[in-house]
Amino acid sequence: MVNVAVVGYGYWGPNLVRNFLELDAARVTMCCDLSADRLAQVKRKHPSIAVTSDFDDVLASPDVDAVAVATPVGTHYDFARRALEHGKHVLVEKPLAASVAEAESLVEIAGKRELTLMVNHTFIYTGAVRKMKEIIDRGELGDLYYFDSVRINLGLIQRDVNVLWDLAPHDIAIMEHLVGERAVSVCATGASHFGTGLENVAYMTVFFDSGLIGHFHNNWLAPVKIRTTLVGGSKKMIVYDDMEVSEKVKVYDRGVDVETPEGVRQALIAYRLGDMWAPQLDTTEALRNMAAEFVECVQTGRRPRTDGESGLNVVRILEASEMSIKRRGREVKL
Amino acid sequence: MVNVAVVGYGYWGPNLVRNFLELDAARVTMCCDLSADRLAQVKRKHPSIAVTSDFDDVLASPDVDAVAVATPVGTHYDFARRALEHGKHVLVEKPLAASVAEAESLVEIAGKRELTLMVNHTFIYTGAVRKMKEIIDRGELGDLYYFDSVRINLGLIQRDVNVLWDLAPHDIAIMEHLVGERAVSVCATGASHFGTGLENVAYMTVFFDSGLIGHFHNNWLAPVKIRTTLVGGSKKMIVYDDMEVSEKVKVYDRGVDVETPEGVRQALIAYRLGDMWAPQLDTTEALRNMAAEFVECVQTGRRPRTDGESGLNVVRILEASEMSIKRRGREVKL
Amino acid sequence: MVNVAVVGYGYWGPNLVRNFLELDAARVTMCCDLSADRLAQVKRKHPSIAVTSDFDDVLASPDVDAVAVATPVGTHYDFARRALEHGKHVLVEKPLAASVAEAESLVEIAGKRELTLMVNHTFIYTGAVRKMKEIIDRGELGDLYYFDSVRINLGLIQRDVNVLWDLAPHDIAIMEHLVGERAVSVCATGASHFGTGLENVAYMTVFFDSGLIGHFHNNWLAPVKIRTTLVGGSKKMIVYDDMEVSEKVKVYDRGVDVETPEGVRQALIAYRLGDMWAPQLDTTEALRNMAAEFVECVQTGRRPRTDGESGLNVVRILEASEMSIKRRGREVKL
Amino acid sequence: MVNVAVVGYGYWGPNLVRNFLELDAARVTMCCDLSADRLAQVKRKHPSIAVTSDFDDVLASPDVDAVAVATPVGTHYDFARRALEHGKHVLVEKPLAASVAEAESLVEIAGKRELTLMVNHTFIYTGAVRKMKEIIDRGELGDLYYFDSVRINLGLIQRDVNVLWDLAPHDIAIMEHLVGERAVSVCATGASHFGTGLENVAYMTVFFDSGLIGHFHNNWLAPVKIRTTLVGGSKKMIVYDDMEVSEKVKVYDRGVDVETPEGVRQALIAYRLGDMWAPQLDTTEALRNMAAEFVECVQTGRRPRTDGESGLNVVRILEASEMSIKRRGREVKL
Repeated sequence: MVNVAVVGYGYWGPNLVRNFLELDAARVTMCCDLSADRLAQVKRKHPSIAVTSDFDDVLASPDVDAVAVATPVGTHYDFARRALEHGKHVLVEKPLAASVAEAESLVEIAGKRELTLMVNHTFIYTGAVRKMKEIIDRGELGDLYYFDSVRINLGLIQRDVNVLWDLAPHDIAIMEHLVGERAVSVCATGASHFGTGLENVAYMTVFFDSGLIGHFHNNWLAPVKIRTTLVGGSKKMIVYDDMEVSEKVKVYDRGVDVETPEGVRQALIAYRLGDMWAPQLDTTEALRNMAAEFVECVQTGRRPRTDGESGLNVVRILEASEMSIKRRGREVKL
Repeated sequence: MVNVAVVGYGYWGPNLVRNFLELDAARVTMCCDLSADRLAQVKRKHPSIAVTSDFDDVLASPDVDAVAVATPVGTHYDFARRALEHGKHVLVEKPLAASVAEAESLVEIAGKRELTLMVNHTFIYTGAVRKMKEIIDRGELGDLYYFDSVRINLGLIQRDVNVLWDLAPHDIAIMEHLVGERAVSVCATGASHFGTGLENVAYMTVFFDSGLIGHFHNNWLAPVKIRTTLVGGSKKMIVYDDMEVSEKVKVYDRGVDVETPEGVRQALIAYRLGDMWAPQLDTTEALRNMAAEFVECVQTGRRPRTDGESGLNVVRILEASEMSIKRRGREVKL
Repeated sequence: MVNVAVVGYGYWGPNLVRNFLELDAARVTMCCDLSADRLAQVKRKHPSIAVTSDFDDVLASPDVDAVAVATPVGTHYDFARRALEHGKHVLVEKPLAASVAEAESLVEIAGKRELTLMVNHTFIYTGAVRKMKEIIDRGELGDLYYFDSVRINLGLIQRDVNVLWDLAPHDIAIMEHLVGERAVSVCATGASHFGTGLENVAYMTVFFDSGLIGHFHNNWLAPVKIRTTLVGGSKKMIVYDDMEVSEKVKVYDRGVDVETPEGVRQALIAYRLGDMWAPQLDTTEALRNMAAEFVECVQTGRRPRTDGESGLNVVRILEASEMSIKRRGREVKL
Repeated sequence: MVNVAVVGYGYWGPNLVRNFLELDAARVTMCCDLSADRLAQVKRKHPSIAVTSDFDDVLASPDVDAVAVATPVGTHYDFARRALEHGKHVLVEKPLAASVAEAESLVEIAGKRELTLMVNHTFIYTGAVRKMKEIIDRGELGDLYYFDSVRINLGLIQRDVNVLWDLAPHDIAIMEHLVGERAVSVCATGASHFGTGLENVAYMTVFFDSGLIGHFHNNWLAPVKIRTTLVGGSKKMIVYDDMEVSEKVKVYDRGVDVETPEGVRQALIAYRLGDMWAPQLDTTEALRNMAAEFVECVQTGRRPRTDGESGLNVVRILEASEMSIKRRGREVKL
C-alpha cells in the first residue's frame, strides 16, 4: 500500500485524489492547500483524508510515502525537492519544473536517493498514444519524417507562463515518447498581444539529427478547439485527432516511394495511396493508468514511463523555445 | 474584345483557355507550347485557336493583345518580360517570378509601358476570400492578432522549387489581401527528406509591426488534405476551411476582453464566447472571376486586385523564407 | 427544502442522487434498491442517506416528500402509483409507464391529489432544445414541415422493450415540446434479428393535421453513434447534432419560396439559400436543470415542463408504434 | 465501334455525350432535342455530331447503333420502345420507366430482339459501390440485418414525380445490387407541402424474407446535403458517406455476438467493438465506367450489371411505395 499526499487542490488536485482513491494499492492520506475553503471541500467529500495548509506537516508525516505536486509551475521545484529530501517519492504535474536547472536538480536528488520521480505527462497513458507507440515501435511508419502538433483553443490567458509552457508540454512529451530520438535544436516564434510580455500564440520547430522535424502550434485565442497531431513516415502516416469521439488514431497506408534506377541521375519520387485503418483504442482513463504507473513504480523501483529524465527533456525544449522566441526565431541548441 | 494568347498548355493552361473562352469580352486567339501533343489537343478541342511552339509567333502576332503565362516558375520572367516589351498585357501564374529582382523588373516594365501586369492569385477571387475581405474591412474582427494557414496534402514532390514556393503563394496572397498591412520580417524552417535539397515540409512565421503574426504550414507529405486558415481578431475570429463543401467561412463571435479598471495594476483578461455565423458565399468559379478581372483591367486600365505589386510582395516573402530556412530560422527583414 | 427518495440505484439512480444533492432546495434522504451491493455503495459515498431494500420504508417515511423512480420501465407504474397514493410527489424516468392505461392512471391520480407528477425527459432541459424552443416559438422557422430524428448506435440489446421504447422517448418528447401540435396517427416498421421478438431497428412516421410529418429512426446495431434531428420550416431550418462538441444547433436561412402570381395556374416553387447561424448554447448539465425544475414545481405547485401529460403523450405514440409494427406499417390513430 | 445517339440534351445529356466521346470504342453520331438552342450548343461544342429535333431521324439513321435516352421520366418508355423496335440498343436514364407495366414491356421487347437494354444506375459504377460489393460478396459482413439510406438536400421540387421517384432510384439500385436478395414488400409514408400532391419528403421501408430490412429517407427540403448509407451485418458494418472526399466507405469490425450456451433459455447477446478500415477506392468517374459497360455489352451481347431487369426491380419498388403512401403506410406486396 502506497500512502499518497496530494499538494495543491485546485484544478488537477481533485482528479489526482479521485484516481489514487480508485486504486487498490494506494491510499490518499493527506491533502495540503493554502485555501481553507478547498481543504473544507476535501473534508466534506473525503472525511478520511487529513488536511493541512502547512507543507511541513506532509514532510513530517510517517503516513506519507509519496507526494503528488499539483501546484503552479513556479513552485514545483521547491515542493518536489523538499519531498525528495525527506525521502518521499514524488509525482509532479507537467511541466516538471520552471527551468532546466531545477529539473536537473530534481533528477539528481531522486537518483541519489533512489526515489521515484515521475512527471504527469498524462497523454502518454492514453489508449491513443499507447497504440501509436506500438505501431511506431513495430516499424510500420518506416523512417520518421515529421511530427506536427496543433493544440489550440480559446483558453485562459495565463499570467505566469506563455502559451508554449502551458500547452506544448503535452505534445513535446508525446513526441519524445514516440520518436525514440533526442531533439538537437529549437527555433520558436510567437506574439504577445495584451502587454503581458507572455506569448499567447506561438510556433516552435524542433530539429533532429536524422532529418526528422518536429513542429508545435499553440494558441490561447483560437475560436475552435483543435488537438491534432500528424506523424509522417516513409511507409505510413498517422493522424491523431484527440477531438474525435471514437476514431482518434488513423493510420494511412500512404507514403512516398523513392527509387534510384541504374543509369538515372535523379531519384524517382512518387507518392503512394492506400487504405486507412483506425484501430480500436483502450478507453481506460489516462489519469487512472498514470496513477497506477506511479504506485507500481514506487512499489517496485521500476522506472516510470514518464520519469524525471523525460520531464527534464520537455523542460529543455521549453526553455530553449523561450530563448529562441526572444531572439526572433534563431536556432537554440539543446 | 481582348485577344489572349495562352503560353503553356500543361496543368493550368487548359483551365485558362476554358475560362477566357467563356467571357464575352475575350477571345483566345493563340496557344503556345513546346509539346506537339499538347498543341494537337488544343487543335482538336478548339479548332479556332492558332497554335505554335515558337513564342516569337505570339510576340509578333497582331491578334494577341494579352499573354497569359502558365509555364514553370523559372521561365515566368522571360516570357512575361518579352511580352511586356512587345506591348502585350500580361497575366502570370503564381508566383509572379522566381526572385524579387525578376518580379521588380516586371513591375517596372509594366509601369513604364502602362500595361496591365496581373498575377493569378486565384483564391483572391473566390467567394470565400471576398466575403472575408468584406467582413474584415468592415472592422468586424477588431484588431488583427494572427493569420494562421495550413495547406498540406500528399502531393507531387516538385523538382524545381520547395514546398513553400509551391503552396504558400496562395495563402501569402490571401493574407496580404486581407490584413491591409505590409509584413516586415520572416522566419522559416523546413526539412528535405529525399536528397533533393528542396524542403518538402516547411513552416514560416511572418511578423508585422502592429503585433499581428502570420504563420504558414506547407507539406507535400501529409496523408490528408487540409486547407484551413484562422484569422484571429480582438472582437471576432474566422475559420476558413476550403475543404468544407458549403460552409467554408465561419465567423465566431469569440474574443478576448481586456479591461484595466482604475486602481488595478494588471489588465484583466477574459475570453468571451458567442454565436457562430456562416455567411452564404458566392459560388462562381474563382478562375472565371479572375479572367474577367484581367480582361476588364486590360480594357479600362484599372489596376487589378492582384497586380504586379501584390505578386512582388508574395515573392519577397518567399525569397526571405528561403534565406531564413538556410539560416535555420533566423529572422530575415523584408 | 424538498426531501427526495431515489428508487433504483442502477444506471440513472446515481446521477439523480448527485444532481439533487447539488441543489440547495433539495436533500436526498433515502435510497431504495433490491441490491445490497448497490445500497452499500450509496452508504460509502453518501453516509447521510438512509438506505433500504423495502419500498414500504420509503412510503412510510415522513422524511420523504418526493420519490424519484429510476427502475425498469415495467415497474414504473407500480412505484409511481403507490408513491402518489401515499401523498408523495413523483419523478419518473422516461418513458412514464409501459402503457397508455398506466400513464393515464398516474396522471389521473396525481391530478386528483394535486401532486407533482413529472417525467425525466432530460433533453427538454438541455441548452440545445431550450434554444430551439425559443427560435421556433418566435416563429423564425415559419410553418413547420417536418421533424426528422435519428438516434442510433451500437447499444445494449434490451430484453424487455424494443428499440423504439428504449431510444425514441427522447426524440418524441423533443418533438412534442417543440412543435406545439398534437400528433394524430402513427405508422411504424422494424425488424428483430435475434429471436427475441423485440425490434432492434425500427422506423416510425408520425402524422399531424397541419401537414407536419415526424419521423424517427432508432437502431441498436449501428456501427457509429448518430444523434441528429432536422426541423424544417417554410422560412428556416434547424440541424441539431448532439454529437457536436460546441455547435449543436445550426439554423439555416434556407427554405422554399412559393409564389402564385395572378394568371398562373401552378404555384412557382423555388428554394432559397442563405446564411447559417449557430447560437451559443447554455451548457449547464440538463439533469441539474431537470432536478431543479422538479424541486421548484414541488415547492410551488407549478406544472413542470415535462409533466405527466407530456409523458402520457409520449407513451401514446410508443404504444401506437408497437401496434403499427405488428400490422406491418398500417396507420394507427392516436 | 458503337455509334450512339443521345436523346435529350438537358442536364444529363451533355455528360453522356462527353463520356461516350472519351471512349475509343464509341462515337456519338447524333443528338436529338426539341430545343433549337440546345442543339446549337451541341453544334458549337461538337461540330461532328449531327443534330435533329425529330426522333424519327434517329430511328431512321443507319449511323445509330444505340440510343441513350436522357429525357423526362414520363417519356422514357416511348423513346426506348421505339428505339428497340427499330433494332437499336438502348440506355435509359434512371428510373427505367414510369410504371412497372412500361418497364416490363421494355424488358420483354429487348429480350425478344436480343438487344442490350440498360439503365443508368450510375452509382453501381462508382469505386465506392464496387468496393462494397466486393466486401459483401466475400461474406465479410456476415448475415445482412439492415440497409439504411439517407439522400436529402435542398433541391428542385419536381413537378412530375415525387421525391422518391426522383432520389430513391439511386439507393434502391445500390441495395438491389449489394444484397443479392429480392425485396418482398414495401411500406412508405410522406408529406406534400405545396399543394402539388407530390411528396417532397418521404420514407420507405422495404422488407425481405431473410429478415433484412431496407429503409430510404428522401427529402427535397433539407438544409444540408446528406448522402449516407449504413449496411449492417452480423459480423461487420459499413458506413458509406458519399459526401466524404476520400474515405467514402468505412468498414467497422463491429457487430453482435449471439451465444446460446447449453442449459440457458435465452440467447446471450453482446455487441463487439473492433477496428475501422477505409479501403482505398478507385476514383474513375462512374459515368465513364457506365458508358464503357454499355458499349461493351452492345459489342459482346453480355448482360450489363444494370440491365433492364434491375431497372424493372427498382420501378417495382417505386410503384409499390407510391401505392403505400396513398394508403398511409400500409404494406404493399411486390
